[in-house]
Amino acid sequence: MRKSFTAVSALLLLAGSAFAEDVSNLNPGITTSELLATAPVHWVSVEQIEASLEGEAPMAVGFDVDDTVLYSSPCFYYGKMKYSPASEEYLGMDAFWTDIHTNNCDQYSIPKEVARKLIDMHTARGDEIFFITGRTRGSGGETLTGAIKKAFGIEKMNDVVFTASSENKVEFLKDHKLKIYYGDADSDMKAALAAGIRPIRVMRAQNSTYKPEPKNGKFGEEVIANSTN
Amino acid sequence: MRKSFTAVSALLLLAGSAFAEDVSNLNPGITTSELLATAPVHWVSVEQIEASLEGEAPMAVGFDVDDTVLYSSPCFYYGKMKYSPASEEYLGMDAFWTDIHTNNCDQYSIPKEVARKLIDMHTARGDEIFFITGRTRGSGGETLTGAIKKAFGIEKMNDVVFTASSENKVEFLKDHKLKIYYGDADSDMKAALAAGIRPIRVMRAQNSTYKPEPKNGKFGEEVIANSTN
Amino acid sequence: MRKSFTAVSALLLLAGSAFAEDVSNLNPGITTSELLATAPVHWVSVEQIEASLEGEAPMAVGFDVDDTVLYSSPCFYYGKMKYSPASEEYLGMDAFWTDIHTNNCDQYSIPKEVARKLIDMHTARGDEIFFITGRTRGSGGETLTGAIKKAFGIEKMNDVVFTASSENKVEFLKDHKLKIYYGDADSDMKAALAAGIRPIRVMRAQNSTYKPEPKNGKFGEEVIANSTN
Amino acid sequence: MRKSFTAVSALLLLAGSAFAEDVSNLNPGITTSELLATAPVHWVSVEQIEASLEGEAPMAVGFDVDDTVLYSSPCFYYGKMKYSPASEEYLGMDAFWTDIHTNNCDQYSIPKEVARKLIDMHTARGDEIFFITGRTRGSGGETLTGAIKKAFGIEKMNDVVFTASSENKVEFLKDHKLKIYYGDADSDMKAALAAGIRPIRVMRAQNSTYKPEPKNGKFGEEVIANSTN
Ligand SMILES: [Mg+2]
Ligand SMILES: [Mg+2]
Ligand SMILES: [Mg+2]
Ligand SMILES: [Mg+2]
Repeated sequence: MRKSFTAVSALLLLAGSAFAEDVSNLNPGITTSELLATAPVHWVSVEQIEASLEGEAPMAVGFDVDDTVLYSSPCFYYGKMKYSPASEEYLGMDAFWTDIHTNNCDQYSIPKEVARKLIDMHTARGDEIFFITGRTRGSGGETLTGAIKKAFGIEKMNDVVFTASSENKVEFLKDHKLKIYYGDADSDMKAALAAGIRPIRVMRAQNSTYKPEPKNGKFGEEVIANSTN
Repeated sequence: MRKSFTAVSALLLLAGSAFAEDVSNLNPGITTSELLATAPVHWVSVEQIEASLEGEAPMAVGFDVDDTVLYSSPCFYYGKMKYSPASEEYLGMDAFWTDIHTNNCDQYSIPKEVARKLIDMHTARGDEIFFITGRTRGSGGETLTGAIKKAFGIEKMNDVVFTASSENKVEFLKDHKLKIYYGDADSDMKAALAAGIRPIRVMRAQNSTYKPEPKNGKFGEEVIANSTN
Repeated sequence: MRKSFTAVSALLLLAGSAFAEDVSNLNPGITTSELLATAPVHWVSVEQIEASLEGEAPMAVGFDVDDTVLYSSPCFYYGKMKYSPASEEYLGMDAFWTDIHTNNCDQYSIPKEVARKLIDMHTARGDEIFFITGRTRGSGGETLTGAIKKAFGIEKMNDVVFTASSENKVEFLKDHKLKIYYGDADSDMKAALAAGIRPIRVMRAQNSTYKPEPKNGKFGEEVIANSTN
Repeated sequence: MRKSFTAVSALLLLAGSAFAEDVSNLNPGITTSELLATAPVHWVSVEQIEASLEGEAPMAVGFDVDDTVLYSSPCFYYGKMKYSPASEEYLGMDAFWTDIHTNNCDQYSIPKEVARKLIDMHTARGDEIFFITGRTRGSGGETLTGAIKKAFGIEKMNDVVFTASSENKVEFLKDHKLKIYYGDADSDMKAALAAGIRPIRVMRAQNSTYKPEPKNGKFGEEVIANSTN
């Protein structure tokens, strides 16, 4: 052991020398303050959201779909590899959208646990739930409504709303008098704010293929803790 | 509630607009990856250090004093305010060192829990412990040895070693055949590496007045988890 | 290297075996979810507090003292060692309080950076600041007012308010029409809530000798991020 | 604003009262120590692993597949829903394994970034790479080898090794003289230790459907930082 430690020690010393010369960041290390650093974000739990609604009459609420209720990167990764491996062009191709909405791609999407808790909570309150997606519908039928219904065991469910634009989304939120809109993207939060309703952020999973990652809480909105899954 | 939320919503919207224009970072937010980010540091517990020494004969080990065994910023803050509020000149004044070593300033220093655990562990192993400080001794007596002895309930203790320079410290580590040297500063880790012995980092408390904070683990050395206190 | 790794490997294997038998938690490890876990706490920055007050007329605000504006464990540790090393009895002794308030003990207390930022922010707004402590005054004069004044460079400052009880504190908050009360202890938050004003939590430093640590955010109150120092 | 705050304050007070009676944990809060808590884990970066191999001759290394190089929960979630929604029985059905290995299910699996970095690093060193899976092969062909080859752009690749048992895996590691084995599961680490080689843990993504999550580092092994994706 003593002998082997000498070898390790020699390695450490080399690392130290390298560092002293500012050549290497092999060992970045971390300061106490960096370890303690906490972002000024208003984290909430599903239980806290529920408590905040106590005494309120049943209401309409909305959920974004991708990365909010479904981890659907499998569909998008599949499509990108098939239609435009080197670019994001697939997102503008009707063939891609028709493909994923008719091949029942979302049977590979992983339902998010946080969505299950939120849906159960709002259902128990008697709230009406709308799933609103920015996906293009494509030229065939759509299997997304069925996938969500099945994944979350929802008995009676409104068809997923396909809004072709952000303007449409804001209109929908207003027209149907939604009170809360859950989403993972900045555009979701902006739509809720533009409609004058309460935005609540769900965290996108780290392994989502949708990059760059949003800065959760950047509008001062509530962010659900532990909501990546 | 609805009314008050509208007010909040207006504020959020303003924040959002400001952000859109890149004017404000009032709400920095945080990405999932930032939240998950972990530094590549070799964290260890006192129990793991103990296990790594199992079967080894009793040995000599050393501890740095300030921010390793004692949170002694009270002495340094007191001295700076008294001798050179606007600079670090007090550290070069014999009057300062004589003052804190004769007024028993370390009765205000807070013993660190991690040091207590380490001292108890090494004492139980039958190891010999040296406390080695980079403090200047000053022209009077010194009360530091007594303060450490009392704070940690050590029955028989070597007098604190005052090394006037880093070279002296390395010599001491070699001459007394120390096997481990615990410290919070980069200079402690460098001294151990220069002496060819095992460096183990203790984290400096965030409220230490000794700045800037070191990057714990930057030499690839082991860093004791939860060792700020 | 190969040889030394074999030795390490043998150690790891032993650790594994031990674990398999549920004998050892030497290596507790950590799950991905544990690493990601975030408490549902409403963190805020000083800048966010300032923004929340925009447009409000100058107001009166209050600060608790110990662990909110001053890291004063040095005084309490000193007193405990001197008056009742084995118990908390010193807190009930007039001799202790008189001692620390006449020996200028707070020259060893470390001013908190978060307090400096808050005091500067409220001063710039033209707010009136009260420092309110639960400390007993003792039989001599008090040097706490002077210590705070000097530490934070406050030109004109109200004398520290010594409230002998929680009831008195609530009364004070009401009588002087304070709008915000900053503190680190649960009792501070409760006093603010009882007075019907806004409680804002400052985190107690980990190396405070005041234990057990409070659960910051447990009343749903705002907690200042990075406020241990 | 004042009015709305009064409403909020009333809510907070209620929360506080509830808490006082130990009825509610709606607001769990968090202590400073909990926030700082760090597990004693030996985290490493891919760069540090590379540096540890400097000067070593080209070697053979192995990778587990599921949750180590591919986020393949899409395949497993699909299979469970299709073959045994209420249990884990699908894992014992030849029909399931044949299905996912012939329908090219892994076109929906997300390649992990950490695997890409590791594969590139070992390829650059001239190391031989084996992908070893605990999956059952099923009765048809297999598309897993092709999926990995394509996902990571590997020019010349050994066919994925299907080991029917842990004993077989250990034998394989020994017979092919592997030096490192990367995996996310405890069984992977145990196999490496049983074969006397270096185990390196890759973190399983939080949204993997494979539960319960392992305690990364529980054998004292190195764990790759930021390796959930
Ligand atoms: Mg989305
Ligand atoms: Mg030191
Ligand atoms: Mg206090
Ligand atoms: Mg695996």
